[in-house]
Amino acid sequence: MADLLIRRANILQLRDECARILADYDIAICGNRISAIEATGTIDPASARTVLDAAGQLAMPGFINTHAHVPMALWRGMGEDVNLDSWFNDYIWQLEANLEPEDVYWGMQLGLLEMIEAGITAVSDHYWHMEYAARAVEQAGTRALLSQAMFGANGLGQIEESAAFAQHWNGAAGGRIRTILGPHAPYTCDDDFLRASAQKARDIGSGIHIHVAETREQTQASLRRRGKTPIEVLNDCGVFEAPTILAHALGATPGDLEILADLQTPTGIAHCPKTYAKLAMGFNNLVELRALGIAVGLGTDGAVSNNTLDLWEAMRLTAMGQKQLTGDAENLTIPQALTIATQESARVYGQAEDLGDLSVGKLADIILVDLGGTHHFPLNSVTASLVYNTRAGDVRSVICDGAPIMLEREHLTLDKDEIFANILPRMERLRRRESADKIQTYNP
Amino acid sequence: MADLLIRRANILQLRDECARILADYDIAICGNRISAIEATGTIDPASARTVLDAAGQLAMPGFINTHAHVPMALWRGMGEDVNLDSWFNDYIWQLEANLEPEDVYWGMQLGLLEMIEAGITAVSDHYWHMEYAARAVEQAGTRALLSQAMFGANGLGQIEESAAFAQHWNGAAGGRIRTILGPHAPYTCDDDFLRASAQKARDIGSGIHIHVAETREQTQASLRRRGKTPIEVLNDCGVFEAPTILAHALGATPGDLEILADLQTPTGIAHCPKTYAKLAMGFNNLVELRALGIAVGLGTDGAVSNNTLDLWEAMRLTAMGQKQLTGDAENLTIPQALTIATQESARVYGQAEDLGDLSVGKLADIILVDLGGTHHFPLNSVTASLVYNTRAGDVRSVICDGAPIMLEREHLTLDKDEIFANILPRMERLRRRESADKIQTYNP
Repeated sequence: MADLLIRRANILQLRDECARILADYDIAICGNRISAIEATGTIDPASARTVLDAAGQLAMPGFINTHAHVPMALWRGMGEDVNLDSWFNDYIWQLEANLEPEDVYWGMQLGLLEMIEAGITAVSDHYWHMEYAARAVEQAGTRALLSQAMFGANGLGQIEESAAFAQHWNGAAGGRIRTILGPHAPYTCDDDFLRASAQKARDIGSGIHIHVAETREQTQASLRRRGKTPIEVLNDCGVFEAPTILAHALGATPGDLEILADLQTPTGIAHCPKTYAKLAMGFNNLVELRALGIAVGLGTDGAVSNNTLDLWEAMRLTAMGQKQLTGDAENLTIPQALTIATQESARVYGQAEDLGDLSVGKLADIILVDLGGTHHFPLNSVTASLVYNTRAGDVRSVICDGAPIMLEREHLTLDKDEIFANILPRMERLRRRESADKIQTYNP
Repeated sequence: MADLLIRRANILQLRDECARILADYDIAICGNRISAIEATGTIDPASARTVLDAAGQLAMPGFINTHAHVPMALWRGMGEDVNLDSWFNDYIWQLEANLEPEDVYWGMQLGLLEMIEAGITAVSDHYWHMEYAARAVEQAGTRALLSQAMFGANGLGQIEESAAFAQHWNGAAGGRIRTILGPHAPYTCDDDFLRASAQKARDIGSGIHIHVAETREQTQASLRRRGKTPIEVLNDCGVFEAPTILAHALGATPGDLEILADLQTPTGIAHCPKTYAKLAMGFNNLVELRALGIAVGLGTDGAVSNNTLDLWEAMRLTAMGQKQLTGDAENLTIPQALTIATQESARVYGQAEDLGDLSVGKLADIILVDLGGTHHFPLNSVTASLVYNTRAGDVRSVICDGAPIMLEREHLTLDKDEIFANILPRMERLRRRESADKIQTYNP
């Protein structure tokens, strides 16, 4: 007896970086897992508690956002046309001085609303006041890997607080919420702080989500100040002895990549191409990283740099960016882009066994996409359309952990009007910028 | 007495690369031109034949696509993950051997349908069987600058045919259709052919729309074979003595840019960043081009390289691409991106006096955009949202030459079902690829 039967869908499956489409198939879900995938006609619809007709729609795994600061959606459009130092010092770290815990609750709901509309079912989020973010995730019905941000300057005591948050919330919401520790970056955390964070992560069986080598300049600065690259710093502080998500790593040296390639613990890089382009940070060479076996997933970063929380856009920019970077259009093919967006992102997220693939036994995080729009016609290649033509607005329905959370673009878990109404009165305060109130200074 | 009154819109205006928003304004249209723009309340709605309530919507000029091969939308998704030589020789020029005149009529309608949905009201289109394209434009109610493609190998007789097409259709559809001559490129047209085309353009008071220096390799090849850059070839053949649209010019040398900067006749470059990224062609440095006063407009190229006909995407990729290329996020700002998408594209299109700006006396090509979606909220910056957040699906209504052609996403001029039904049976034939049938060989 299936709890939910998705009928007559076309299913995207990726095997060894080859894509195939199972046309006119049913997906049966029991509890929160996929229990059967069969050609339509095989499973009796009367045997399912709920039937969802997806005729002509494309079913694929929900997107996994491997690096974000979701509540920053509150400030989208507010740090434009500036380089990274000004972006931090004149915008972000002034704006964040205004942040109150309840802002995180509503900002997180806003970002989750946008992500659900774009077919993102899981997010690795790194931010402040994360118990408020966790409450928003509980309500949204999505999946999240939450890390409480920490600056070294705020003292070692934070590590205990973060660990308490992590231990309290890990496995919450029926397992949809997982946690991880979030020291901000080597340039905002000294070696002692990083070492203590890494030790705590090991002690509580957690991992680390950290910004590292965001630019080549940061690597140069680290070499001058510490005599080591940022990735060497993390390695020497024991960070990589726990599972780690590295945000960006654009400034990784060939030696750094060797370190990452040799690691035994799961480690992955979150790649956020829209933010990189907007802030003129360059691109990582994913062809090289992937040849070394390093996991690379897609991320949106926060919406103050990325403006949107949309992994269709990130997937497209990833493919196009690598072609441009390497000067070879045969690089980062359509099946590779789809693999990065699904299975590889699940690997970076730390749930490769359960997510990023529609097959029997996996968790049922499924999105249904309408490829019937003019911008897809004629549908000469479903996979090309997914990478280069699909817009967030083409996502019709979203299922997470076996439960529908958006059906035919109607939200079932979050209330857009309520979210907007709660955010608007906060914005006058949240938009203030006072240099004196900056929470941190960017000077790597 | 206004024929159409658009009420309560927020109007985007650009002056000297600064953007402003006129909040809660009305636009009155008499015939095909804007007759008044006033704060809402000033113009009596009873004085207008038709009133369109645009409360809360953003009014801006319709996008102008300065370089396309619209009917190629028929083959979208069919030339993926290959470099330019294979793209031409293994895909495009084999596929185009299948093309029948009536395919152009339906392919053009398909592309116009997609462009209307994305807010594009004018297109400079370069393709085959253009009388069929012209008939589709007549029906769509949009604006077009049409050029019949010519390969030198097909003989000088084509020039007379193209000129006859140009003279017959120039000014048609109440002036919505203009024409121009379309020699394909210096690498497919010899000097005699280019010289004769240029002479004919001058003789009939027309201009030239041509591909040139699409890559740096083409420039190198031209220097080897002809001892001149492709742009020097065009200059020496007299092409620039008539108004010219240059597609791409990515391989322009500093000397070429001097030639272009010194021209007295209107010349502009069509910039198609999605195609460039997908085909790993590099990017032009628009900061340099613009500093020299060279006009740069946005283009989609054909959908076999670009996959979509969407200038929101092109505008965004233009801004992000220049930041990445120059390593400076202060380059290609939001107001500059909007200026390129509107006024500068109108200049490349050859109608700077009439298009690309909403002010009294201009032609009424207006789009209404809904910025109320989750992906725009909170709307901290309208202009940032237009460049970095807006999707084609946010366009609600489109007015061209004073007449509504899409209202609240309902098409008033084209029939999507009819277009799809007419294209589907053609696709089996159109998708065939036979190397022996290639219409041309890419070997610059």
